[in-house]
Amino acid sequence: MRVQFATSNEHKVAEARGILAVLGWEVERVAIDYPEVRSPSVEDVALDGARYVADKLGGPVIVEDTGLFIRALKWFPGTYSKYVLNTVDVTGVLRLMEGVDDRYAEFRCAVGFCEPGGDPKAFAGAVPGTINHAPLGDGGFGYDPIFITEGESRTFAQMPVEEKNAVSHRRRALAAFVAWAREEMPGR
Amino acid sequence: MRVQFATSNEHKVAEARGILAVLGWEVERVAIDYPEVRSPSVEDVALDGARYVADKLGGPVIVEDTGLFIRALKWFPGTYSKYVLNTVDVTGVLRLMEGVDDRYAEFRCAVGFCEPGGDPKAFAGAVPGTINHAPLGDGGFGYDPIFITEGESRTFAQMPVEEKNAVSHRRRALAAFVAWAREEMPGR
Repeated sequence: MRVQFATSNEHKVAEARGILAVLGWEVERVAIDYPEVRSPSVEDVALDGARYVADKLGGPVIVEDTGLFIRALKWFPGTYSKYVLNTVDVTGVLRLMEGVDDRYAEFRCAVGFCEPGGDPKAFAGAVPGTINHAPLGDGGFGYDPIFITEGESRTFAQMPVEEKNAVSHRRRALAAFVAWAREEMPGR
Repeated sequence: MRVQFATSNEHKVAEARGILAVLGWEVERVAIDYPEVRSPSVEDVALDGARYVADKLGGPVIVEDTGLFIRALKWFPGTYSKYVLNTVDVTGVLRLMEGVDDRYAEFRCAVGFCEPGGDPKAFAGAVPGTINHAPLGDGGFGYDPIFITEGESRTFAQMPVEEKNAVSHRRRALAAFVAWAREEMPGR
């Protein structure tokens, strides 16, 4: 089976390709914009996006939505992470965390899957960690330089990409999707 | 003519009623949730919301979207003002503005109008000002305690509500709508 992954990021497609290989599925990148619903939940954004893109393209699709959720900031920036990155940036988020003792945060990802005319499904993955007091590392992107996952001393931006991917929220969401597909869509 | 204003805020309805009285229109409040499109523009949010609500209610409607746009923060929080207020709050916005010399900001409002099956129209109003270094005043709501409009020394929260309304972005947007309606919908 061939599934289209609606994203502008080729690295995400490569990651998905590796994980979906166990299903024998082919993953193809498609560049398509879709409206993102306003909701505090990455699952809602992924469900809505998957339905829209599947109907638009007329074939099975996956989309994904990711956000950084900081507990001390009432889970800001959450599903608005990209917008916040493009405006106040990592520097702004660190400012909001100055003098804040509770550093807990998690990356959340939801993968949405849909076939045309069908009901979309969402699969979630999260990775717990803390917000560092300063940006560290040159790797990764987005909030990676200030996020340290549990049990680690390096930020995501300091870890080699394979190491980061091995524990990533996106991998977990994709793995949940694969487990479901093996059960519900055998032989597709 | 009778128009329904989709808002949970009775004060906004009272303000609209006063301004639309010159058209001889009646304004009625309706409590209805509608999806808000993700866009940096209050006009887009108002257009999309007006179309949705008009089709849902089967009658002419107005909706409005308002945001605080801060130049030094790349116009953050913008159309996400309510979300930001509910998470990092006014305190967070002041933190982001610590040590920032460019204090320029504006409130922007768009009023959306639509009749069922018709094309929605949007009418914009803005009020320029600056972000104060600390919250002042007990009146108003939202960002009013940190916003000082041009030519004033008091924040919106320090001004009596009639004085604030006289210069408000919402009044300007409603006035633009009235000017259009007098021209385009005479005798309705």
